[in-house]
Amino acid sequence: MRDKNRPIGVFDSGIGGLTVTAELFHQLPEEKIIYFGDTGRYPYGVRSQPVIQRFSRQAVRFLLEKEAKLIVVACNTATAMALEILQSEFSVPIIGVVEPGSRAAAAASKNRKVGVIGTLGTIRSGSYERTIKRVAPDIHTFSLPCPLFVPLAEEGFADHKATLLIAEDYLAPFRKEGVDALVLGCTHYPLLKKAIGQIMGPSVRLVDSAEETAREVKAELTRLNLLRLDGHPQPEYYVSDTPDKFVEVSQRFLGDKINRAELIEIEKYSGQPKTPVVV
Amino acid sequence: MRDKNRPIGVFDSGIGGLTVTAELFHQLPEEKIIYFGDTGRYPYGVRSQPVIQRFSRQAVRFLLEKEAKLIVVACNTATAMALEILQSEFSVPIIGVVEPGSRAAAAASKNRKVGVIGTLGTIRSGSYERTIKRVAPDIHTFSLPCPLFVPLAEEGFADHKATLLIAEDYLAPFRKEGVDALVLGCTHYPLLKKAIGQIMGPSVRLVDSAEETAREVKAELTRLNLLRLDGHPQPEYYVSDTPDKFVEVSQRFLGDKINRAELIEIEKYSGQPKTPVVV
Repeated sequence: MRDKNRPIGVFDSGIGGLTVTAELFHQLPEEKIIYFGDTGRYPYGVRSQPVIQRFSRQAVRFLLEKEAKLIVVACNTATAMALEILQSEFSVPIIGVVEPGSRAAAAASKNRKVGVIGTLGTIRSGSYERTIKRVAPDIHTFSLPCPLFVPLAEEGFADHKATLLIAEDYLAPFRKEGVDALVLGCTHYPLLKKAIGQIMGPSVRLVDSAEETAREVKAELTRLNLLRLDGHPQPEYYVSDTPDKFVEVSQRFLGDKINRAELIEIEKYSGQPKTPVVV
Repeated sequence: MRDKNRPIGVFDSGIGGLTVTAELFHQLPEEKIIYFGDTGRYPYGVRSQPVIQRFSRQAVRFLLEKEAKLIVVACNTATAMALEILQSEFSVPIIGVVEPGSRAAAAASKNRKVGVIGTLGTIRSGSYERTIKRVAPDIHTFSLPCPLFVPLAEEGFADHKATLLIAEDYLAPFRKEGVDALVLGCTHYPLLKKAIGQIMGPSVRLVDSAEETAREVKAELTRLNLLRLDGHPQPEYYVSDTPDKFVEVSQRFLGDKINRAELIEIEKYSGQPKTPVVV
């Protein structure tokens, strides 16, 4: 396959990465996207770093088998916990969502107080704090996990009063800190933008990294002379469990309908020495 | 090891099974318990049957390596989706939580209308409906999934007003149906008993299968002449990810403190033919 026509590989712990995919469709309509959602092993947000690194390596190996020319880690937890090690182990260009989101927050904040919300894993990793410190050393970052936001988004409770009450609890410390930009550091959170915005008020900018990430993908492909120039290829979706549920819920994230997703056995991409089998 | 002194093996997708373990401690204080919580791959409630069967086989193989004389599937989803196949594949006695819970509900209901709440997987499987029909054919069963109850219980939102609002939504159909017994068909749900009871009212009996399951374990060990007669052995806890979080949250479920949990690599108990490794 000609290099430029090779696909962009995208992976996430499940469906959240579709918010990034939607933005890739928008900014790079000529590119073919191959998406892997690790629905058999999500959520990543509660798992440890070694486990997430192992899962992420498997996703990268799968996408390389599909001849990906560039890989997007469309998951904040996997970016926070595995991006560096993936970049050191694989030669394909790999882009995460933390750096683009951090840059967007730095650009948006006037009072130099930025809040970050995400899963337990993302927040514990300190990844956003380190990255914001690097791209804008004058910014004070304040971060907290919001573990219930993912199940609330997935269960379609975005507009439920209970979500507003929970958001009120989770976000009160950010209001107290007086941040004027809040990074939605989890690809699920854009679905709760309305509730989060209602609590934070109109003066706080909500930063969604999808847009910025897609921009970085475009820049990187341009730099590598790998931008696809024409075509309108069909995206392909792969999951590690229950494709039906993925297809069903996807519309909420992608704003568009997926026809099918294919079930794959992701654990066979482990590439690790096999331990003896105990029967 | 003498047969009677061999441990009882208990497994669950994570920490929920500790509510069953607490009841085993209470009813069988002389027995040694070995607990495996599949924290690296929970929640089971959203996964498909083949995946849950594979995970459950691995748990059984691990507990057999620990010389379990009897195994308790302390997880409603795994019981609903894998108990039968486990019982057909392994010779060790294996007890699930669905049948004891069904019997308790049948005994508790006066108007013969029983409600069942559980994870999506448990409810979709129809396991409670089939079992209740078998043990008490005159009972009308009505069941619905409550997917947010697990994260709410784990995040310590049991007494939050949002939980009450969500419970109100989830449980309204059961009030309309006029059930007089409600099976808490997920080992996490006893933590939300207060909120659930507040919505259902004092005339509805909440059925928690832990007690009944422990009774069945005792009866089965007696029947097999495998009841341990003396001793006060220390339980052992094993998990597939982040033992610290397990230890931290366990107190809420067990009502007692766990000192440590050991991390194991559960995937090596797969016993399946290996697929070639793609690097």
